Amino acid sequence: MSTSINLAVIPGDGIGQEVVAQGLKVLTAVLPQDVKLETKEYDLGAQRWHRTGETLPDAELEALRHHDAILLGAIGDPSVPSGVLERGLLLKLRFAFDHFINLRPSKLFPNTATPLAGRPEIDFVVVREGTEGPYTGNGGSLRTGTPAEVATEVSLNTAYGVERVVRDAYERANARPRKKLTLVHKNNVLVYAGHLWKNTFDTVGKEYPEVTTDYLHVDAATIFFVTQPDRFDVIVTDNLFGDILTDLAAAVTGGIGLAASGNINPTGAFPSMFEPVHGSAPDIAGTGKADPTATILSVALLLRHLGYETQAARIEDAVSADLAERDGTFRSTDAIGDALAARVAG
Amino acid sequence: MSTSINLAVIPGDGIGQEVVAQGLKVLTAVLPQDVKLETKEYDLGAQRWHRTGETLPDAELEALRHHDAILLGAIGDPSVPSGVLERGLLLKLRFAFDHFINLRPSKLFPNTATPLAGRPEIDFVVVREGTEGPYTGNGGSLRTGTPAEVATEVSLNTAYGVERVVRDAYERANARPRKKLTLVHKNNVLVYAGHLWKNTFDTVGKEYPEVTTDYLHVDAATIFFVTQPDRFDVIVTDNLFGDILTDLAAAVTGGIGLAASGNINPTGAFPSMFEPVHGSAPDIAGTGKADPTATILSVALLLRHLGYETQAARIEDAVSADLAERDGTFRSTDAIGDALAARVAG
Ligand SMILES: CC(C)[C@H](C(=O)O)[C@@H](O)C(=O)O
Ligand SMILES: CC(C)[C@H](C(=O)O)[C@@H](O)C(=O)O
Repeated sequence: MSTSINLAVIPGDGIGQEVVAQGLKVLTAVLPQDVKLETKEYDLGAQRWHRTGETLPDAELEALRHHDAILLGAIGDPSVPSGVLERGLLLKLRFAFDHFINLRPSKLFPNTATPLAGRPEIDFVVVREGTEGPYTGNGGSLRTGTPAEVATEVSLNTAYGVERVVRDAYERANARPRKKLTLVHKNNVLVYAGHLWKNTFDTVGKEYPEVTTDYLHVDAATIFFVTQPDRFDVIVTDNLFGDILTDLAAAVTGGIGLAASGNINPTGAFPSMFEPVHGSAPDIAGTGKADPTATILSVALLLRHLGYETQAARIEDAVSADLAERDGTFRSTDAIGDALAARVAG
Repeated sequence: MSTSINLAVIPGDGIGQEVVAQGLKVLTAVLPQDVKLETKEYDLGAQRWHRTGETLPDAELEALRHHDAILLGAIGDPSVPSGVLERGLLLKLRFAFDHFINLRPSKLFPNTATPLAGRPEIDFVVVREGTEGPYTGNGGSLRTGTPAEVATEVSLNTAYGVERVVRDAYERANARPRKKLTLVHKNNVLVYAGHLWKNTFDTVGKEYPEVTTDYLHVDAATIFFVTQPDRFDVIVTDNLFGDILTDLAAAVTGGIGLAASGNINPTGAFPSMFEPVHGSAPDIAGTGKADPTATILSVALLLRHLGYETQAARIEDAVSADLAERDGTFRSTDAIGDALAARVAG
């Protein structure tokens, strides 16, 4: 825990701007007086791309590298071809800074709307691999645009990459009261990658005798997410399955407006990056309807990562208390930010 | 519509045996007197593999090829290494018989338990590609079992394969009252395959001006499956996304005990194969707890495929009526089969 935080801020597109402002508001309110917070904003995203054709130039990547952490709002706009900003900016950051832990906690807070009948207890965390799988950009197409086209996507998995994320997940499971870890894959079809994952999971597991383990195919996992979400404690899975499962997890725990995430490099070699799971939602940008809670909870993950556990917990408690008291009347992005800033400052 | 049906039956493993027996019972009951039903059972699955080491020998593949259709129960057992039967038998059949349409209707029947609050209207069909994507077995591993292991899985997509499934989905959407087709992919990350799918979807769509179209990333689609399933009419997607989405669809429409599927080759060049979406459920095999309804609904798909529309609809109506009258008391596999056979015979 340092006495200063040098934070990079990438508001990005759409509601990204609005939610990040609230995240910073709460961050400022929660930090002890003697911690110096410096922020530097980076103008990256759709507008920048339209203006200059750039997604993430080397100089900015290099500058970002020297921050303690990065807070990101949302990236993407329908005016930009699909994939350009995702691959050229968001995934570029995750890969360049070796964010191999994509941490996505899912908790059903009191008094929040879940589409599930009976309001099951939900409190699990998905440890999604962040630097491999089908996300490496390893694909191509031949005879593109003709009736003879062939397009491939390659999922790359290494023992190096799988072992470190699996180990991290065991550590997290071991530190939680229920000590349960579920591997999700599809090893009955993706047999090569599946074998590597399962084998690593079993081998590393020997070092954690107190952790109960379980394996589920990804298709079966989606069933349990809606029928028995309380069976999960920590889940470890690959980049693509983690992407899919965490959106579903967000949906069953009150929606994407509450889902936080951290793109973490636990070694500290590079700055980690924190962002809400939701996208830029251009349809509601500027209306004040965006819920900044996911970003504010991402700030809590950021603080925890930097060693400010007390402050992280204070934000999470504030969100819990705030949600418990929400009565369904509309509150703007700004009003929610104000309410949470007031609570954490207390 | 022929006046005889020469059906291959692969009961398979676990509850496969039990549910297939009920499927055949209902099939026999629903068929007009003058239609001659011949069935031949194939001993394939875990027991066969343990006995002989074989999953699907060439001679049996060749024999299967001459049937009008195949009814399959379930494949898989924990005593067999993951992937052996899936790849060596189930997927081998789907690929050998070029089952490029994996048809999976999802309907929330009256009076069935859904985990979703508020019981939304659900009535959609997923047209899952069945012969390409990450299911082709195109992967490998290097330095297997060492800390330097690299494992790959390749998703293969061809214009030939994508175009035919997309066209089939447009035809199905066009024939339904709502005429809506949603493409699900992840084209912001899997840009090569995603481009082929989206481009094909847009191009073929020009021939179906009455069909309303929509595109969703697979992660976002899972959200709508639980928050707004009534927005879907027909969905077309790749082999892996279709696998994941249809288990989730089954979960929200009353569970895997009701989910039917057809592995269809619409050209008639090879026999199509019909099977419940569920697995072999070894934990309940032999207990009489397996719900045969998914298999019986798969028989309806089989009949429709062979031109027996009246009989197919009669089975579906019988299931609807039967579910509407179920009062929650336990009924065995056999009792459900008897009840449905009695209804369709009427
Ligand atoms: C925008 C997209 C590239 C991204 C992903 O697929 O990882 C998003 O869905 C997420 O989950 O953060
Ligand atoms: C058993 C497995 C190979 C299969 C698949 O992945 O297609 C199953 O999950 C299904 O959906 O029919």
